[in-house]
Amino acid sequence: MLRRIGILTGGGDAPGLNAVIRAFVKAGVRHRNLAIVGVEDSFNGLLDTPRRLRTLDLPSCRGLLHLGGTVLGTTNRGDPFAWPSPEGSRDRSRALAVAVADEGIEGLVVIGGDGTQAIAHGLMTRVGIPVIGVPKTIDNDLAATDVTFGFQSAVDCATDALDRLHATAEAHDRIMILEVMGRDAGHIALHAGVAGGADVILVPEIAWNAESVAAKINARRAVGRPFSLVVVAEGSLPDDGDARPARERLRAGHGAGAIAAAALHRVLDADIRVTVLGHLQRGGSPVAVDRILATRFGVHAANLAAERRWGRLVALQNGAVVDVPLGDAVGGVRLLSPQTDPLVAVARQTGIAFGDEPTAFSAEG
Amino acid sequence: MLRRIGILTGGGDAPGLNAVIRAFVKAGVRHRNLAIVGVEDSFNGLLDTPRRLRTLDLPSCRGLLHLGGTVLGTTNRGDPFAWPSPEGSRDRSRALAVAVADEGIEGLVVIGGDGTQAIAHGLMTRVGIPVIGVPKTIDNDLAATDVTFGFQSAVDCATDALDRLHATAEAHDRIMILEVMGRDAGHIALHAGVAGGADVILVPEIAWNAESVAAKINARRAVGRPFSLVVVAEGSLPDDGDARPARERLRAGHGAGAIAAAALHRVLDADIRVTVLGHLQRGGSPVAVDRILATRFGVHAANLAAERRWGRLVALQNGAVVDVPLGDAVGGVRLLSPQTDPLVAVARQTGIAFGDEPTAFSAEG
Amino acid sequence: MLRRIGILTGGGDAPGLNAVIRAFVKAGVRHRNLAIVGVEDSFNGLLDTPRRLRTLDLPSCRGLLHLGGTVLGTTNRGDPFAWPSPEGSRDRSRALAVAVADEGIEGLVVIGGDGTQAIAHGLMTRVGIPVIGVPKTIDNDLAATDVTFGFQSAVDCATDALDRLHATAEAHDRIMILEVMGRDAGHIALHAGVAGGADVILVPEIAWNAESVAAKINARRAVGRPFSLVVVAEGSLPDDGDARPARERLRAGHGAGAIAAAALHRVLDADIRVTVLGHLQRGGSPVAVDRILATRFGVHAANLAAERRWGRLVALQNGAVVDVPLGDAVGGVRLLSPQTDPLVAVARQTGIAFGDEPTAFSAEG
Amino acid sequence: MLRRIGILTGGGDAPGLNAVIRAFVKAGVRHRNLAIVGVEDSFNGLLDTPRRLRTLDLPSCRGLLHLGGTVLGTTNRGDPFAWPSPEGSRDRSRALAVAVADEGIEGLVVIGGDGTQAIAHGLMTRVGIPVIGVPKTIDNDLAATDVTFGFQSAVDCATDALDRLHATAEAHDRIMILEVMGRDAGHIALHAGVAGGADVILVPEIAWNAESVAAKINARRAVGRPFSLVVVAEGSLPDDGDARPARERLRAGHGAGAIAAAALHRVLDADIRVTVLGHLQRGGSPVAVDRILATRFGVHAANLAAERRWGRLVALQNGAVVDVPLGDAVGGVRLLSPQTDPLVAVARQTGIAFGDEPTAFSAEG
Repeated sequence: MLRRIGILTGGGDAPGLNAVIRAFVKAGVRHRNLAIVGVEDSFNGLLDTPRRLRTLDLPSCRGLLHLGGTVLGTTNRGDPFAWPSPEGSRDRSRALAVAVADEGIEGLVVIGGDGTQAIAHGLMTRVGIPVIGVPKTIDNDLAATDVTFGFQSAVDCATDALDRLHATAEAHDRIMILEVMGRDAGHIALHAGVAGGADVILVPEIAWNAESVAAKINARRAVGRPFSLVVVAEGSLPDDGDARPARERLRAGHGAGAIAAAALHRVLDADIRVTVLGHLQRGGSPVAVDRILATRFGVHAANLAAERRWGRLVALQNGAVVDVPLGDAVGGVRLLSPQTDPLVAVARQTGIAFGDEPTAFSAEG
Repeated sequence: MLRRIGILTGGGDAPGLNAVIRAFVKAGVRHRNLAIVGVEDSFNGLLDTPRRLRTLDLPSCRGLLHLGGTVLGTTNRGDPFAWPSPEGSRDRSRALAVAVADEGIEGLVVIGGDGTQAIAHGLMTRVGIPVIGVPKTIDNDLAATDVTFGFQSAVDCATDALDRLHATAEAHDRIMILEVMGRDAGHIALHAGVAGGADVILVPEIAWNAESVAAKINARRAVGRPFSLVVVAEGSLPDDGDARPARERLRAGHGAGAIAAAALHRVLDADIRVTVLGHLQRGGSPVAVDRILATRFGVHAANLAAERRWGRLVALQNGAVVDVPLGDAVGGVRLLSPQTDPLVAVARQTGIAFGDEPTAFSAEG
Repeated sequence: MLRRIGILTGGGDAPGLNAVIRAFVKAGVRHRNLAIVGVEDSFNGLLDTPRRLRTLDLPSCRGLLHLGGTVLGTTNRGDPFAWPSPEGSRDRSRALAVAVADEGIEGLVVIGGDGTQAIAHGLMTRVGIPVIGVPKTIDNDLAATDVTFGFQSAVDCATDALDRLHATAEAHDRIMILEVMGRDAGHIALHAGVAGGADVILVPEIAWNAESVAAKINARRAVGRPFSLVVVAEGSLPDDGDARPARERLRAGHGAGAIAAAALHRVLDADIRVTVLGHLQRGGSPVAVDRILATRFGVHAANLAAERRWGRLVALQNGAVVDVPLGDAVGGVRLLSPQTDPLVAVARQTGIAFGDEPTAFSAEG
Repeated sequence: MLRRIGILTGGGDAPGLNAVIRAFVKAGVRHRNLAIVGVEDSFNGLLDTPRRLRTLDLPSCRGLLHLGGTVLGTTNRGDPFAWPSPEGSRDRSRALAVAVADEGIEGLVVIGGDGTQAIAHGLMTRVGIPVIGVPKTIDNDLAATDVTFGFQSAVDCATDALDRLHATAEAHDRIMILEVMGRDAGHIALHAGVAGGADVILVPEIAWNAESVAAKINARRAVGRPFSLVVVAEGSLPDDGDARPARERLRAGHGAGAIAAAALHRVLDADIRVTVLGHLQRGGSPVAVDRILATRFGVHAANLAAERRWGRLVALQNGAVVDVPLGDAVGGVRLLSPQTDPLVAVARQTGIAFGDEPTAFSAEG
């Protein structure tokens, strides 16, 4: 009888999830002689009654390579250690272990971000479910892996948006602010800003103030460029003396784009417009880079499962797909290093401002 | 000496403005022996000191066909009849006529929407400036022309957004609301909704209520489709007893998407997310349909100018480029006819709801 | 018991086939109370043993709106009146009628081009199978309908190719020839050429010679534009004294692009490159315009079937979806009218040459 | 007085050339106080009479980031050591050195491939022109750099083509062959094949035979997949006993795609179609990855020039932009390693065949 391995997706979706699933099934079924069971909606498919599982064979993988979203569904609700119930949350991790055993599932491949991998690690160490992790973070801020699938698709989406905004900003002499994903880390804003020809990039890792941004915009005006493009990461706030925590300020109904616009309005006479890219960055077909990376991750996960190398997290390091201890993934966030990140330096050298420059700019192009 | 004709763009930008300019110059210079003068930033280029004009010859048209925005710049500020000044607005229409004569410009080709064409008509009838109009309305709501350039590019942009949102909505069992352009008319919402497979389309022309929309969403849930896509035009509001004028409600800080989400939240337990497409619809390279239509309009305008047929508005009627009296364009808005528009009927037959249906839906797919 | 209606796709595929099927099923099942049976691979699914039919219900339509190709499959082989067999072709039309009756199918909706509709007409008139036709012609050359789905997707694909070739042509001072679809009619070449900024458009309806094309290219060189873009329809050949029929010349191993390049090489010293767009024009997701048109056609076909209005062909005329006698579709091809087509005139006015101009060009841009 | 540095582009164009130029000018002018001189059409601009040079200042960089091609022009003709002349080629390298000195140009930044960099190296070592190299190879086969700009844009273009061909292949049960770039190396074919879901990838580095490819195609047929997608690099030929050198066989009028089709026709009864992607891969706007890499390369070249670090070639190694001795670039080609390349192994594990497998396949999906 074939060994049965489960696979599930947890947390927010990202372009490439289906490509991981497809590669895992293709490699697992064809080359490693595994039977694959898809668990629906993160861990919920194993804990709901009736269980929601489906056999993933080769025909079920057709058309998945370029499909956005996840055919297994995903959810942020349903931590087995804090399962929502009418009486409050309770620990259903043992029930999960029972369900896994009951289904004859040898171990789980868990595709998800920081939070999901922490749960996976807990399931392995506390209730003994064998787990392999595949990292998912569209913000590209997991410490264990140099990059993961979905990030480049988000960058391409944001770059395309900047290309579009450029035309209308120039036609109307406007300041266009584009809010992109990035709660803690500014990787998407930085990459899209460089690729899309932004004039200003605002990221959580670099404290910025409106006067400095206005100085950059005015320096452009002085050389006959009365419009500017500003990219702001959703977790980036001005250094304006407001002492509330960032999450609280952002939760107060206005996003980072609107807050940046308000801050600029105070120091600049300009027609400022905000566009929030939001869910458009997550949806859509993955770009080629992400399809390839997702395929590599899925194959590696199949090899780990076939070789019973549980407790590992797939990762990309220096261009190679490797695996690291699953515990390593938990907790660490990979932020931009404002001083040492080479792309920040490159951006500054091509004239992009980060809002931390002195306000006495020289005129420029 | 060559006859000199001016051209300018007014109001909001739309994909295809540069293609009109290019075609006008190519046809005017090559085939009709005209000299073309570009006026910058709507009428401002003729009223500012110094004037901001530029000769548009064949080399200046290179690369314009697929370029978004307008190389001449545009603005909504600068009605010559109500020119902004420190003392309030004043009438500078005669100064404009003097400037036109002073520059040896025989007449103006004015590319713009409702407001701009009303000004153009006034300039002709009240101060005698010969004018030819080219209609621009990304919302596709000018009565005089069946369709104009930019509309299809906006529809394609919104359709692509729906394709993207579909994946993430399905992965998360979410209600995704996409707010698209359309202050008075729901053409973009209707076309994009049909092309992008929306489940609900909300337009200003059809009074809708949240209970009906919720019934549609629940009917989908009942057949195993726990997600739904809703497209809402920016001028569409629920029929919820709020007696304030639409403009006032929308100005109160929240757009149509947010208002629709709030209305749905009141009657539906669901994870609802709003995406506002905004300026992304205007920017970007025009799609082929719009490049062709803009080229046809530009050539027709050149022929009208060459033949001194002033006071005409270029239009598309039954597939043919024609011209109509410029006065016809003023005031009339082309709305959807909920009862007779064939695409509304088609949409309903494929299961799309408009929020005016009875709330007792049968289960469906 | 529900009435059963069959649907099939014949001939070459086109973007939008699946959207027609989806709309037909949605409208037929939801609103007209029909049961829909998909027939695989044109008529083959009814004549093969075992028969290859599948029930098309609402769930089977998921994801079809933007999917290229046809989920039913298609084929050019399998005319029931001339069925391929080891002993040569034979008439299996009566067997088809028997199969239709045997399956309890009341009538067939046939999506296909000229040839397929001729067969459909024959099936109705000669063996009494009730038929409704939906026209399919990516070349846009069916007389009965102003336009059909797939055409605009092909034009967009070809326009995008011209945008790409423009950059590399200009970098290398090359003559780039792009061969696009259009065996008898030059609609795709004309539309893509205007939208993509071609310098020369060569279509079957306009006799052209290499000297004239070379004169245009040289006129561009004289004004500092040493590169040119040429679009040629696959059925367009130079007027060079070769008396063989076009089909024969084209069959001799070289396509229209290569033949045009050879003709130009004889009269022009230039670096000429040919790109054949081929199947890329057929594949891919339909653009919004085509999704909408396909949806309208599918709904209209469902209404016709529900009302037992057999023997009709769905069509678009002056912007309205109508139906005409099925026999009308047979035989007539809608060609460009070189003298009266307004887009040809527009193209000429923007400086595009068709290879029939005198060779003494004036210098130009 | 400012130091004057020249920049030129040589060899075939690639997406991102303009982005390198833009970043070099921005960083050089703004941050390193250099004056930049663009040389037109590779070295020709310095050797023609009159010389064709242009000052590149900040305004001249507008719009370059996303523009395909090269604004400086490029050419493969014009090796200064073997300059074409009526009497045959002659050495004009000293004339070039004189022109460089005469223009007050301190050194040249040369963006180009293998051949162009060999010339650049010769100019430095033999006639003393200070040179900095920026590698360009859309095939991604230069040994000195892990990857260079343009490659990913080509991969994305080829992946999109595969997505398109998939639909039409499946609709018609066809074998679709896509010929992509790659004379010596199969990187584009491999990446696009994995990203686009190809069934077979044929590259120059892996000897393949038609029987093996046919076995793969037949194995797919046996499990109900009667269509297949084959990607072939333009330099890949079957191992069929034809002893002629590859270049000679390919020059005989038929490309790798046609040769592969002919080889398959001999052993397989199938409807086989070939699409040659050709110049479409080079043209077009660079994708975000390539814009970023090109920007990084341009900035690094500016820093090298500012610091008079002549004789260096910019490169990407392990994710970092570095520089290596210019001589290192000459001669070495980076091929796929069939045995050790991880992506080849991943491709095999997901069921992709390379034509070197035994012909006794098991049935598969």
